[in-house]
Amino acid sequence: MSTISIATAKEVFDLLRDDLAAIEQEFTRQSASQVEVITDIAHYLIAGGGKRIRPLLLLLSSKALGCTSEARIRLGAVVEMLHTATLVHDDIIDEADTRRGRPSSNTTWGNAKCVLAGDWLYMQSFQTALDERNFRVLELLISLTQQMVEGELLQMQKLGHLINEEEYFDLIFRKTACLFKVSMQLGAAITPGADASEETLGEYGRNLGLAFQIVDDVLDLTAAEDVLGKPVASDLREGKATLAVIHALERGTGADREAIRTVLADRSFERVSHTQILEILQRHGSLDYAMDTACAYAEAARMSIADLAESDAKRALLWVPGFVTSRDR
Amino acid sequence: MSTISIATAKEVFDLLRDDLAAIEQEFTRQSASQVEVITDIAHYLIAGGGKRIRPLLLLLSSKALGCTSEARIRLGAVVEMLHTATLVHDDIIDEADTRRGRPSSNTTWGNAKCVLAGDWLYMQSFQTALDERNFRVLELLISLTQQMVEGELLQMQKLGHLINEEEYFDLIFRKTACLFKVSMQLGAAITPGADASEETLGEYGRNLGLAFQIVDDVLDLTAAEDVLGKPVASDLREGKATLAVIHALERGTGADREAIRTVLADRSFERVSHTQILEILQRHGSLDYAMDTACAYAEAARMSIADLAESDAKRALLWVPGFVTSRDR
Repeated sequence: MSTISIATAKEVFDLLRDDLAAIEQEFTRQSASQVEVITDIAHYLIAGGGKRIRPLLLLLSSKALGCTSEARIRLGAVVEMLHTATLVHDDIIDEADTRRGRPSSNTTWGNAKCVLAGDWLYMQSFQTALDERNFRVLELLISLTQQMVEGELLQMQKLGHLINEEEYFDLIFRKTACLFKVSMQLGAAITPGADASEETLGEYGRNLGLAFQIVDDVLDLTAAEDVLGKPVASDLREGKATLAVIHALERGTGADREAIRTVLADRSFERVSHTQILEILQRHGSLDYAMDTACAYAEAARMSIADLAESDAKRALLWVPGFVTSRDR
Repeated sequence: MSTISIATAKEVFDLLRDDLAAIEQEFTRQSASQVEVITDIAHYLIAGGGKRIRPLLLLLSSKALGCTSEARIRLGAVVEMLHTATLVHDDIIDEADTRRGRPSSNTTWGNAKCVLAGDWLYMQSFQTALDERNFRVLELLISLTQQMVEGELLQMQKLGHLINEEEYFDLIFRKTACLFKVSMQLGAAITPGADASEETLGEYGRNLGLAFQIVDDVLDLTAAEDVLGKPVASDLREGKATLAVIHALERGTGADREAIRTVLADRSFERVSHTQILEILQRHGSLDYAMDTACAYAEAARMSIADLAESDAKRALLWVPGFVTSRDR
């Protein structure tokens, strides 16, 4: 690697290629059940891909601390499996038809089987984590899962309603940043003597996760359907107000606010079009505001690890925030 | 207590009254969430009652080993909470309208919230168990939950189909006996130096659980709706063949088998009535066969603990199997 302080995508990929491949194998192995339909659903979800950003964070966190334990592979698979479990249940709740450009699992197997498959994935995650015989690991994972579930319920209660920025940040912390944070913390939890680094690394994960979800929410408003793999503006169609929308609501004219309220209440673009909403958001600089906020969190993530000892892993961690804020899907 | 070897209901109740009341309080305390709807659903389910037989087993198991740790109260609440979590998800899966004579939680709050409330109850159970800092406790609870979830999926795959006795026993072990077994094992797991008793107590729980579920399944066929708190013969209406039905299928005439197959496939009594099915079961002694099998497991439960040191708790454990097989709901 070169001596500049931020890595390139290729360097990061070279650094993690073997470990990420091992995690993929481990995830497949862990999700094989004696009950066929569980294996079918789990392998369908694995094949659907995903960015594997949570395992990547866990790997970089443990590497930055010099940890070479196989626990990083097993727990890398666990964080991806937990993430997958939440997706299975979320798709039931949101009555989603598609996920990552393919039919969602509930569309293929039905709600009943997917409730149970999600349950099984949760239990399998904990079972694998339990094998580490490390209470801190279990504590991080179990309280994380509870926070995510609570977040999803809070979001349901707020569907169709206007929320403020504080509520928005609480929701996206629970939905995304919490698991990013725990993925980073786990790197410290499996490294003997690294307790002191857990908070710093967790702070990086939290900031990065907030940046990630804000960008996700902007892309939901602006990206093309074929790039995103799901219908455009599905958040608004589900009654969810995200950062740019909240910004416009606070700054818009009476007519602007009324237009946004109508879409959130209707959960459709029948009376107010998607183009009209985009025009409102652009006129108030709301999309730029959201992207600027994401970039500020990305920078905060980089700052969080300023004191971490120099290493290839640290350079990779400094690269990730820029990757997250510049992606197009 | 008298010196005869089997206690009475009153003696058992006197023995456990304070602990059961403490568990009830603990269950209410554990299920209070900062997310209101979780607390609402959980408290609705607590108020719905239930036999509290799982906490009772945990208490008797720990008492029989001389354990006075407060862990018996906390984990007594945990096993009831885990049981409740499975009921919430099962009601979604079975599309149940009623539970214990009241609207089921999914009818009141909808599937989406109940998926998440069930998830939360699972996580809260593990969180409380984690506080014990006892890996064996976590191992028992997590692998139990996974077995129960797998059992529910296996059952779904078999709905509407004929199954044999072996498959039936595997299903009821996962559905009921496994949690009875773990409730007993937990008593040993929280008692220092009681490792050697875990298997014996677990065997008692397994036998008792099988007896319990066989009786449950007979009552589903024979008891009146107002006693049961749910529609009569709901198993057949859901396409589930239970022990008496399997017995009749193996011994019945061609017409008998056809009648049973019709109900299982139709999942209704439109073409073949409930009375016709009961007549078939009675003619082949199938209900008696199922009850005799339940009584044999109840006796096996009593035999499992023959070598346990004499105590009030042991006398209570000797009483429970008779209570389980002679109940009418």
